[in-house]
Amino acid sequence: MSLSFEIGKVADGGGRRGALVLPHGVVETPVFMPVGTAASVKAVEQGVIERLGTSGAQIILANTYHLYLRPGHELVARMGGVHKFMSWERPMLTDSGGFQVFSLSSLRKVTPDGVEFRSHLDGSKHFFSPEHSMDVQIALGADVMMVFDECVEHPATYERTRDSMALTHAWARRSRGHFEANKERVPWFAERGGKTQSLFGIVQGGMYANLRKESAERLMELDLPGYAIGGLAVGEPREVTREMIARTLEWLPKDKPRYVMGVGYPDEIEEYAKMGVDMMDCVLPTRAGRHGLLFARDGDGAVVRMNIKRKEYAEDQGPIDAACGCMVCARYSRAYLRHLFVAGEPLALTLNSVHNLHFYLATMERVRKGLADAVDAFGEFNTEPTS
Amino acid sequence: MSLSFEIGKVADGGGRRGALVLPHGVVETPVFMPVGTAASVKAVEQGVIERLGTSGAQIILANTYHLYLRPGHELVARMGGVHKFMSWERPMLTDSGGFQVFSLSSLRKVTPDGVEFRSHLDGSKHFFSPEHSMDVQIALGADVMMVFDECVEHPATYERTRDSMALTHAWARRSRGHFEANKERVPWFAERGGKTQSLFGIVQGGMYANLRKESAERLMELDLPGYAIGGLAVGEPREVTREMIARTLEWLPKDKPRYVMGVGYPDEIEEYAKMGVDMMDCVLPTRAGRHGLLFARDGDGAVVRMNIKRKEYAEDQGPIDAACGCMVCARYSRAYLRHLFVAGEPLALTLNSVHNLHFYLATMERVRKGLADAVDAFGEFNTEPTS
Repeated sequence: MSLSFEIGKVADGGGRRGALVLPHGVVETPVFMPVGTAASVKAVEQGVIERLGTSGAQIILANTYHLYLRPGHELVARMGGVHKFMSWERPMLTDSGGFQVFSLSSLRKVTPDGVEFRSHLDGSKHFFSPEHSMDVQIALGADVMMVFDECVEHPATYERTRDSMALTHAWARRSRGHFEANKERVPWFAERGGKTQSLFGIVQGGMYANLRKESAERLMELDLPGYAIGGLAVGEPREVTREMIARTLEWLPKDKPRYVMGVGYPDEIEEYAKMGVDMMDCVLPTRAGRHGLLFARDGDGAVVRMNIKRKEYAEDQGPIDAACGCMVCARYSRAYLRHLFVAGEPLALTLNSVHNLHFYLATMERVRKGLADAVDAFGEFNTEPTS
Repeated sequence: MSLSFEIGKVADGGGRRGALVLPHGVVETPVFMPVGTAASVKAVEQGVIERLGTSGAQIILANTYHLYLRPGHELVARMGGVHKFMSWERPMLTDSGGFQVFSLSSLRKVTPDGVEFRSHLDGSKHFFSPEHSMDVQIALGADVMMVFDECVEHPATYERTRDSMALTHAWARRSRGHFEANKERVPWFAERGGKTQSLFGIVQGGMYANLRKESAERLMELDLPGYAIGGLAVGEPREVTREMIARTLEWLPKDKPRYVMGVGYPDEIEEYAKMGVDMMDCVLPTRAGRHGLLFARDGDGAVVRMNIKRKEYAEDQGPIDAACGCMVCARYSRAYLRHLFVAGEPLALTLNSVHNLHFYLATMERVRKGLADAVDAFGEFNTEPTS
């Protein structure tokens, strides 16, 4: 196995600190992973990403669907894999392409074999199967890759969700088989001394707790090195998201990394991390930033959302958040950031994204520290009596 | 006077090294000034601009027309001036707004008093006079500001050019008068111990050498601390640009900074610097970068232009220019840069602009060093005999 995961004591609430050791480095968990869709975290240079928070992003995501279409996974493989291609030496994760096939492409035709779809870029016809997703992800060479799953629309009936989940399970099994047979083809196999990627499963089951339980059980039979909870944050109320995560965590193995895909707002990622989620990713900090939505904290530490284009900031000489330690808050005023955004300056995209990403990473650093402190303080109650 | 200019010996060809001392710092000349149109060098963060070349850009430009329209010069003044507004502590220069009024706005109506025009942003009606341009530039508070001039279209007849030039001279005189009467209103007047901005003149005269001579003579009567050569690079052949610069330099005072506005390609800025031009600015490095045009040098040091979107770079693992010392060439391949550009990633704008700006600044650093070496080597021929 090319992954190890060490976890400390579990804090009240279920949160735990961990260290996920991957071929390209160690990731301290719980972790938030910035999304670099097309091998670029939009508008933010890799050197800046390495300096976000205290010590930079530990792991970033890239999207299989996007890189498959452009520049093509085989080209990326010839360049040595996605790390070398984009000059990012730290760990990476790729999704399976499933979510984008279902959300971005058109004219999808799902069969038990896979999905035929048309590219959102040029309408060209493509086919993704579990085997093809594995081939693409092996060519890209992220440290962690994901099984190919069907993402059910929301809302969906129980029957529709159950049938889709069954397809996802069959595809997970095929994904694992094809991955195991081909994992030594990762571009950096020899260079990294025979290490390979790790394939994570994805629990589906929509908003039905018993289907989530069944999904977790079926996937655990595959004995994968990590498990994601997919199909959330698709429009359901937040209490439902939380409930599905809480229930699913009960049924997943305690000793393996647990990853909730595509969430969420800053208070959500904090909450889920304290519940025991180890990994999260979301486009929100960068996408919100590109739309002028900035995250900050009020005097009580609660998250506030600022729409930087509002007139009230036009002459505001303060930083976005006086308590924030990011390079944007250290140097630029709200007035300047509003001007850049209103004027359509490309620098607005960069500065807003940098602040929001820093905000997310700093939030997770604080959560990790809180989990460590909680365990230290109550350590004697958490350990077995020694006498 | 709030400016001093020290120049060394003049090299063969007319080039000279100098030190231009301005309220916000010292600028070593000859210098290339990146353009920050709306108080942002497009897509490049100020901290990055401070690290371009060996020691960063020494002085940058902002456009009076753009900042007047958005966010408004009075707002910028209330924020402490453009330096504080954009968090740039080094010297700055603003143009007069004249060029943009003539090139960007619509429905211009020129009278001896000034120009009525409609904003390119929203069609709103505005009026710029020499006095108003001075008020706006004093509110912005750049170290160097420019007289308000009429920019004649190209090509233009002798009569049209002569009449326009006469208007420009009248406006220069009014600019100077209004500036002298109001210069203590610059936002940082008290904070900088009573220092003020410096107002440069602009020589016009189109492509007619005798008009250029007359323009230089009329402007020198105003005894301004520096002189620009305007109205070039407007579509005329390059030999004509060169000829106009060469002739005009003969007629301008030798002991004052000489600034050619809005030029040019890398080989041009090098050529003009060696002819004795002290300051230049151009949007080309950033604008070309945003269009995927990158500058590099071949084995002989000649400038080559790369269109990064070309297929031939798709799998090219080399940097843009192996001899370049910029952060882009240090880290990213042509293949990655091509991918970013083709995929429309905002990071493409940033990385292409950073490389091109570095290329320009490094070129000028080399020219400055060359001028120093030339003077050192032939110093004994350039000094008066001591016996």
